[in-house]
Amino acid sequence: MPEQIFSYQQLFDFTKSVFQKIGCSTEHAETATKTLLSADLRGVDSHGVARLSGYVRLWEAKRVNATPDIRIIHETPSTAVVDGDSGLGLVVAPFAMQIAIEKAKNVGTGWVSVQHSNHFGIAAYHAMMALENEMIGIAMTNASPLVAPTFSIDKMLGTNPICVAAPAGDEPAFVADLATTTAANGKLEILQRKNLQTPDGWVQDKDGNISNDPNALKTGGALLPLGGDRDHGSHKGYALGAIVDIFSGLLSGANYAPWVPPFPAYVPMPSQQPGKGIGHFLGAMRIDAFRPAADFKKSMDHWIHGFRNAKTISGQEKVLIPGDPEREFEVERMRDGIPLVEQVVTDLKTLAENFQLSFLR
Amino acid sequence: MPEQIFSYQQLFDFTKSVFQKIGCSTEHAETATKTLLSADLRGVDSHGVARLSGYVRLWEAKRVNATPDIRIIHETPSTAVVDGDSGLGLVVAPFAMQIAIEKAKNVGTGWVSVQHSNHFGIAAYHAMMALENEMIGIAMTNASPLVAPTFSIDKMLGTNPICVAAPAGDEPAFVADLATTTAANGKLEILQRKNLQTPDGWVQDKDGNISNDPNALKTGGALLPLGGDRDHGSHKGYALGAIVDIFSGLLSGANYAPWVPPFPAYVPMPSQQPGKGIGHFLGAMRIDAFRPAADFKKSMDHWIHGFRNAKTISGQEKVLIPGDPEREFEVERMRDGIPLVEQVVTDLKTLAENFQLSFLR
Repeated sequence: MPEQIFSYQQLFDFTKSVFQKIGCSTEHAETATKTLLSADLRGVDSHGVARLSGYVRLWEAKRVNATPDIRIIHETPSTAVVDGDSGLGLVVAPFAMQIAIEKAKNVGTGWVSVQHSNHFGIAAYHAMMALENEMIGIAMTNASPLVAPTFSIDKMLGTNPICVAAPAGDEPAFVADLATTTAANGKLEILQRKNLQTPDGWVQDKDGNISNDPNALKTGGALLPLGGDRDHGSHKGYALGAIVDIFSGLLSGANYAPWVPPFPAYVPMPSQQPGKGIGHFLGAMRIDAFRPAADFKKSMDHWIHGFRNAKTISGQEKVLIPGDPEREFEVERMRDGIPLVEQVVTDLKTLAENFQLSFLR
Repeated sequence: MPEQIFSYQQLFDFTKSVFQKIGCSTEHAETATKTLLSADLRGVDSHGVARLSGYVRLWEAKRVNATPDIRIIHETPSTAVVDGDSGLGLVVAPFAMQIAIEKAKNVGTGWVSVQHSNHFGIAAYHAMMALENEMIGIAMTNASPLVAPTFSIDKMLGTNPICVAAPAGDEPAFVADLATTTAANGKLEILQRKNLQTPDGWVQDKDGNISNDPNALKTGGALLPLGGDRDHGSHKGYALGAIVDIFSGLLSGANYAPWVPPFPAYVPMPSQQPGKGIGHFLGAMRIDAFRPAADFKKSMDHWIHGFRNAKTISGQEKVLIPGDPEREFEVERMRDGIPLVEQVVTDLKTLAENFQLSFLR
């Protein structure tokens, strides 16, 4: 399908202008843009600028507050709860992560649970904020219910991602960012466009039967937890998604389980609202709160070399380190530009017209 | 196969005597016994008294120190590194978890990475120590290499379990305890005994080919990370196992990756020893460091009710909450006794003879 290529700077300027048009301060608009576009840079196309119009629609529906009063509502030396005041998660989560980092500077670790937020882009952006501080970063978020737990027809959990970023020495950082489902929505979209079937274990149909239809989610079906079915460990993927929900939603006082607000503004809000907005959980652990950072990083390099030199199965060149593919994307796209599919370009053009912005000069 | 049933108290007294015979203090022998037998009570037969003779053999091989000087070697208000002095993980890990709990009392959370330890039984025992303190407990450990990362023939990681325990109100606690593999060794043993094949995604053979042989591990093959293969998300299971290794092994200064010492005493030590012993990671988060505990527990009850009332797929009665099956085992086995297979009984009888103990009076 036809793609157009834009430079990071082009997309940055345009996206920032859109956030400013909905009323964000310059500072918030820049933070939101940086967070959002980190997805495009890292090859997670489903979570980047393709969602810009979605965020605008949430603002139009008054579900996003462009001028939030983001604040700590409870804290201890190593913890805080942040009220995002219905702001963009793209802004709220970096605010919360910064608090986690400051707490880690003071007492070794910092842990911030966030309520009353919205979708925060990719978890990796937030977790990676820890790296330049010689810390391990952790980020997770709950999300609207698309996933059926083991034995369930009902969708009870979001794709609830977990990211852990750990610095290395000479090697690039370890960055594991994973939805707790077998496959995320973005992968289904690729198969939909190519008219291909999904492997077993990705989705079930509306009656809970095994399905290979990449459109199953659109016809009442559900994504499946990592593992796919009970025989393949789906109860573990379900448990991981549940842990994310507890840390992000229940510890903070946000919504949780099937009551997390949906991303598409046209989808009605859930019947109940046991909490406020969407929840995140951000953590930072100072390496030298455990061990001299230089020693740890040397061990990380040794660890990484061990895996890179592992013997591979037939047809594979190398064992990857979590974060390798995304980092390669980032180098390539910063240099060569970011390809956008036609539908996204059209979407951005419409935004430009609506906000009387010139499109990507 | 023939089984004999023993009461918890019988097994407790016998196991404690064995630990005393190898030189443990009464206090350590009791802690080790309680930790070990929690596996039998919770239905994790592979990790309980069946391993008692294995621990004794590690002691005979001088890999376990029965009188360790377990101590903090570095700390901040929210963190510590514990040197287990080659003690039983069954004793070292509860010591470290208690430190995490004390730190959480003081500054909201506590995080303890442990080096120079040995196998710690089931992760759930340690994580659940937090529950009675109105805290969320987290426990993980690395282990000897049985798992091939995605695209690897070489075994680079252990089954590296993660447990998270969170208190509820009227409902029992949420306890998710999961190896980061599709299936753990215990499940393979069941299929071996029944002469059945494994589903796809559990194991690969020595050349990295898909295998359905439950004995694959014994013939040079490997367990597979949760997900099984790349199409089914094995890179996520691999990443999770890696995170456990980094937190447990690299943050503490223990061994890691393929260099973690093996449990069977007859297996030679790995070629390198980049750290000391086996590593664990224990965490405790005080609920009211985030939110009033009563509010959180009310939300947990609501969450649990939501899942229990979810509509089930055909043939299934209910959606389970992580920890349900193990808790049912615990009630049943505390009341009716613990069944041991013949091989384990024989093993315990040999121990009794060697240590001149009368067997299970």
